Amino acid sequence: MAKKSFPLSKVYGLLEPGPVVLLTTASKTKANIMTMSWYTMMEFEPPVVGCVISNRNYTFNILKSTKECAINIPTLELAEKVVGCGNSSGRQIDKFNVFGLTQVTASCVKAPLIGECYANIECKVVEEKMVAKYNLFILEVLKAWIDPTRQNPRTIHHRGRGIFMVAGETIRLPSKMK
Amino acid sequence: MAKKSFPLSKVYGLLEPGPVVLLTTASKTKANIMTMSWYTMMEFEPPVVGCVISNRNYTFNILKSTKECAINIPTLELAEKVVGCGNSSGRQIDKFNVFGLTQVTASCVKAPLIGECYANIECKVVEEKMVAKYNLFILEVLKAWIDPTRQNPRTIHHRGRGIFMVAGETIRLPSKMK
Repeated sequence: MAKKSFPLSKVYGLLEPGPVVLLTTASKTKANIMTMSWYTMMEFEPPVVGCVISNRNYTFNILKSTKECAINIPTLELAEKVVGCGNSSGRQIDKFNVFGLTQVTASCVKAPLIGECYANIECKVVEEKMVAKYNLFILEVLKAWIDPTRQNPRTIHHRGRGIFMVAGETIRLPSKMK
Repeated sequence: MAKKSFPLSKVYGLLEPGPVVLLTTASKTKANIMTMSWYTMMEFEPPVVGCVISNRNYTFNILKSTKECAINIPTLELAEKVVGCGNSSGRQIDKFNVFGLTQVTASCVKAPLIGECYANIECKVVEEKMVAKYNLFILEVLKAWIDPTRQNPRTIHHRGRGIFMVAGETIRLPSKMK
């Protein structure tokens, strides 16, 4: 599946609806994947994203030291792998290997992209002032990619304890909102 | 519609899926409503929520001075009012009046709750260090309410420019995730 470059000005539209995402990082020894729902858009362009990553997660120290990651957006068919990544730790396993996900080389960061995800967003950490108290990392998006063949991606949205809402119909209302 | 008290330990499950919400505030002279999608859960219990509110919004200064608000979660049938609130400013109009929404008295904050929304979450501002640079307010949830008759609320999720994804089917996977 060949991905196309996606305009940074449109990245907010991928994340604003609140899908579960897979955050990838790479330490010197291995790449890792973390399931994440606690994030928000913070600026349109360049896109800025705030992410809450528990300091108990394996990803926390890798992100603190490498200051790079990618946000990968999975769809319904990846739901079992998403839960698998959320129920395991990179301290014990190689998640790319165990869950059969494909590492794709990113253009701006060392963290790999997940080939099976319909969109991939390369990010660097730009603010760590709220990490100590709130585990909040602020990321700037450097580059984004999308699978142009996926028109209405069935993203999944976590309600807690493995219960997900699947993206439903789309409605369009006249609006001046961005 | 009589709302029931909702456990604070379960509030994350309302917000984590990423629905558009209506943020209510009250100044000395009037109550206001702001349409909001840029927020994230930050802690389970007591629940902490990070909200990005542009300093161009009427709500910004009211929240800075009163340090209280409510997060109200609308469903599909309120979509036109949600867009109406997003396309207008409390500087010019009384949104409760113009959009025909019902003010319900909250128990812990002066900001009114929106009667038509299926869930209401009363909050106070607990951190303003990231307001100047990122417009990020950090809120603690004091009290939450839910309409017990709404089993599968059809929340709406903003993709940008008035295009919304409507909550679809629910799937349940075995999970140790919270």
